[in-house]
Amino acid sequence: MTNQVKIFDTTLRDGEQSPGISLDVAEKLEIAEQLARLGVDIIEAGFPIASIGDFEAVEAIARAVRGPVITALSRTGFQDIDRAWEAVRDAEHPRIHVFIATSLIHMKKKLRMTEDQVKAEVVAGVSRARSYTGDVEFSPEDGSRSDVDFMCDVLQLAVDNGATTLNIPDTVGYGVPEEFGHLIAHIIDTVAGDYVVSTHCHNDLGLAVANSLAGVQAGARQVECAVNGLGERAGNAALEEIVMAIKTRRDYFGGVETGVRTEELARTSRLVSRLTGYPVQYNKAVVGRNAFAHEAGIHQHGVLEDRETYEIIDASTVGQEAAQIVMGKHSGRHAFSDTLEKMGLHLQGDALNQAFIRFKELADRKVQLTEADLEAIVAEELGTGAVHRYSMVSLDVHGGTQATPIATVVLTEGEGKVDGEAEGNGMIDAVIAAIAKATGVSGTVLDFKVSSVTGGGDALGDVIIQLESDGYRASGRGVATDVVEASARAYLNAVNKVVRLRDRPRRERTVGP
Amino acid sequence: MTNQVKIFDTTLRDGEQSPGISLDVAEKLEIAEQLARLGVDIIEAGFPIASIGDFEAVEAIARAVRGPVITALSRTGFQDIDRAWEAVRDAEHPRIHVFIATSLIHMKKKLRMTEDQVKAEVVAGVSRARSYTGDVEFSPEDGSRSDVDFMCDVLQLAVDNGATTLNIPDTVGYGVPEEFGHLIAHIIDTVAGDYVVSTHCHNDLGLAVANSLAGVQAGARQVECAVNGLGERAGNAALEEIVMAIKTRRDYFGGVETGVRTEELARTSRLVSRLTGYPVQYNKAVVGRNAFAHEAGIHQHGVLEDRETYEIIDASTVGQEAAQIVMGKHSGRHAFSDTLEKMGLHLQGDALNQAFIRFKELADRKVQLTEADLEAIVAEELGTGAVHRYSMVSLDVHGGTQATPIATVVLTEGEGKVDGEAEGNGMIDAVIAAIAKATGVSGTVLDFKVSSVTGGGDALGDVIIQLESDGYRASGRGVATDVVEASARAYLNAVNKVVRLRDRPRRERTVGP
Repeated sequence: MTNQVKIFDTTLRDGEQSPGISLDVAEKLEIAEQLARLGVDIIEAGFPIASIGDFEAVEAIARAVRGPVITALSRTGFQDIDRAWEAVRDAEHPRIHVFIATSLIHMKKKLRMTEDQVKAEVVAGVSRARSYTGDVEFSPEDGSRSDVDFMCDVLQLAVDNGATTLNIPDTVGYGVPEEFGHLIAHIIDTVAGDYVVSTHCHNDLGLAVANSLAGVQAGARQVECAVNGLGERAGNAALEEIVMAIKTRRDYFGGVETGVRTEELARTSRLVSRLTGYPVQYNKAVVGRNAFAHEAGIHQHGVLEDRETYEIIDASTVGQEAAQIVMGKHSGRHAFSDTLEKMGLHLQGDALNQAFIRFKELADRKVQLTEADLEAIVAEELGTGAVHRYSMVSLDVHGGTQATPIATVVLTEGEGKVDGEAEGNGMIDAVIAAIAKATGVSGTVLDFKVSSVTGGGDALGDVIIQLESDGYRASGRGVATDVVEASARAYLNAVNKVVRLRDRPRRERTVGP
Repeated sequence: MTNQVKIFDTTLRDGEQSPGISLDVAEKLEIAEQLARLGVDIIEAGFPIASIGDFEAVEAIARAVRGPVITALSRTGFQDIDRAWEAVRDAEHPRIHVFIATSLIHMKKKLRMTEDQVKAEVVAGVSRARSYTGDVEFSPEDGSRSDVDFMCDVLQLAVDNGATTLNIPDTVGYGVPEEFGHLIAHIIDTVAGDYVVSTHCHNDLGLAVANSLAGVQAGARQVECAVNGLGERAGNAALEEIVMAIKTRRDYFGGVETGVRTEELARTSRLVSRLTGYPVQYNKAVVGRNAFAHEAGIHQHGVLEDRETYEIIDASTVGQEAAQIVMGKHSGRHAFSDTLEKMGLHLQGDALNQAFIRFKELADRKVQLTEADLEAIVAEELGTGAVHRYSMVSLDVHGGTQATPIATVVLTEGEGKVDGEAEGNGMIDAVIAAIAKATGVSGTVLDFKVSSVTGGGDALGDVIIQLESDGYRASGRGVATDVVEASARAYLNAVNKVVRLRDRPRRERTVGP
């Protein structure tokens, strides 16, 4: 058996299905490129049948990203599989990932199929996928709650009809390590043929990483996981924890290894957090800001004397050093784009121009900008990467404890201008009301988060707003030295996304493994 | 062997040692009371020798909180142990928790002691503790990296000299479940006597919960853990995950159970997050806002049709329902304090008056306040529970993209008034500068977080600021309908804390198990 454990990243599929996350094509491409740089083996880019947006993102990633296998999720129906293939066919290494549920509860309540019907679906679906590509993965959804014998029959059919990877999902996060390890061992013993076994574990009981590793111990050679542990409900196994556990405890895991460049883990985590709007908790293993005792980013020189008495991972191994200062107000356009390239961030054309203009505005107010600041600026521009209907011209706000807060905004709309003035419960509320008046798009702010990009009173404010309008949900992000201005930008970005979403068919609600 | 697994909560000791957390006595008491309500068996209230603040908090909890055992951490020196006993002696059920490192690296680099010296310390320390109380816990720090035979010798000495609980720490989060389970089993086989075995697992590789549960499978009957998984670096095993794994997979864990009232888990998590300023990530198991597929708090009626196809825990089991609307502007003082009592929040005297005034101010601007809103108001008042030097009279702010942001504040200082006016890079920056001018306390804002308490555009803004001034760190929290005003309140609360901290000796930097 090989010592290489393949890392299958599902941030863009299972992760992206989390409530309130809606990445556009440019954002997904940026994440996929970073995943390639990180060295993952397989990128699950999306679920093409779910929406036109999903399809376009998978297609764009398949065409642009080199290195990893690019896969798309698909149910067993021919329409699904054909659509998945259409999306990934241009990849350097395309894969189709076919799934169907095998647990009694899912077959009865969701599929309304008998065991024989499910088997027939597997035979037809896997064969169809195999007719397109030699790289076919099959997943029995809710595997850990399925009847083991029935599931093994289904897996055997999948292998016999062309599946090369068998992925065993603990869809509801019900497994515990010993038991899940035994399940993987039993499958390897029972199902004949040449295939790789994979795990896909959810974290509802906090055991996703442990279950995945128990799978590896039992012989699994692919682990499905997501950056920052994103995914449905409590998420998937966290990629960074899987990778660092295997690396740190190589002695225990019998010398297996992954191909991940661990020093890219911190940046990957930050990029995904920025673009999804999902914060990483301070005490998150590996990528949380407290993960190392020396408090990265706060006291650059405050490293404790006996590091190894309390740390088993060196912060630099995962790219968690304090951000270096890279750019100031005298930096030119060339230096700006050079620095972005060095950081592995690719912006072109309008997005690069916009980012540079924002950079200069910010550099004029701040003395120096760090790598993390630049990442934030680029993240905002990626968020508006698509054509946006509105952009901000000016903003004026007044408030306090004595006066009712009032805001005035002027926006461009295409070639023209629109403006709005409104009062609110607070200054940000007033700004939002003014933008709603100017654009005619109003809705409910589901969530509002502000964080400073770096430490210090002069830090950039980084605002994420989740907006629901007319049944559409979108998140927008804004970065500025002023939190009220950043909020206005974030809200406007969310409005621009809602406007775009309205013109598209809605995504199907299908959960997947 | 008993089926009862004792839950030992170390949120107030190991959790509170996290960077930037500094809870005052009132805040610690509030958390301890909630832990008692939650039904934990043991509360580790602090490390009395570390600082006067720690001592006072442990003493206050020992005197006030009924139900759980109250314990204090202590090194083996008599001064430490005497101080720990002094702090917990008035508890209904006092315990002393003595620790010393047994790994080669810790003995060499930190303790600078030989094996024999460590053994002598254990004999002396445990005997001293036992002379005060019949409930003594002993921990060999860095146990998972210790020589097993030496550690078992040390544990035997601890039992022979009076220890009734042996706690095995995986101090650096190095363990993996199978291995850690074997270690626990080996200790039970090797060390003679009548004692309870306990686990204390850190999460550096994402395995703290799995390791603790492997310990339970092997015979451990106490688990040390913290709410939201707080603790040094990547934190401890998350209390809520331990409890729900044992409850949900009772079939697997041989029928063991905990005494925790799971329906208090969500509220406990929110309280700890508010008071520590540590956000809970959305995809956190059990207590994250996405933990349940029906998106609690967003769509009250949007529960998916076949809940059990994707959920293994019912949201109501852990108290994660949408907050009910409880209070409006017409609610009186009596109704207000009644509601708080029903929610289990005890405020008295000035703090109650202050909270009621803030409630009325907010209720005048908002139509209705939810339970979560009330929790936030109370959390702000708890943060200022001690005597505070400054409080806000008025605030006026103006800014936008065209004008330089400018702020004016008026504060009370004792009987008098002070004011300040300043410009800034943003409106919040200007407000902070104005407060710094008025109070003469300036510093670096290490972190700044804003979240909305509930959904909706009329949600309260909840701001947490971590301030470092003159080598002191303090966090402040502010709640208002206006984020800029909430920021001013948060900053002012942090300033008030810094002023208090300055008058006290500094805490020792000792990490512990």
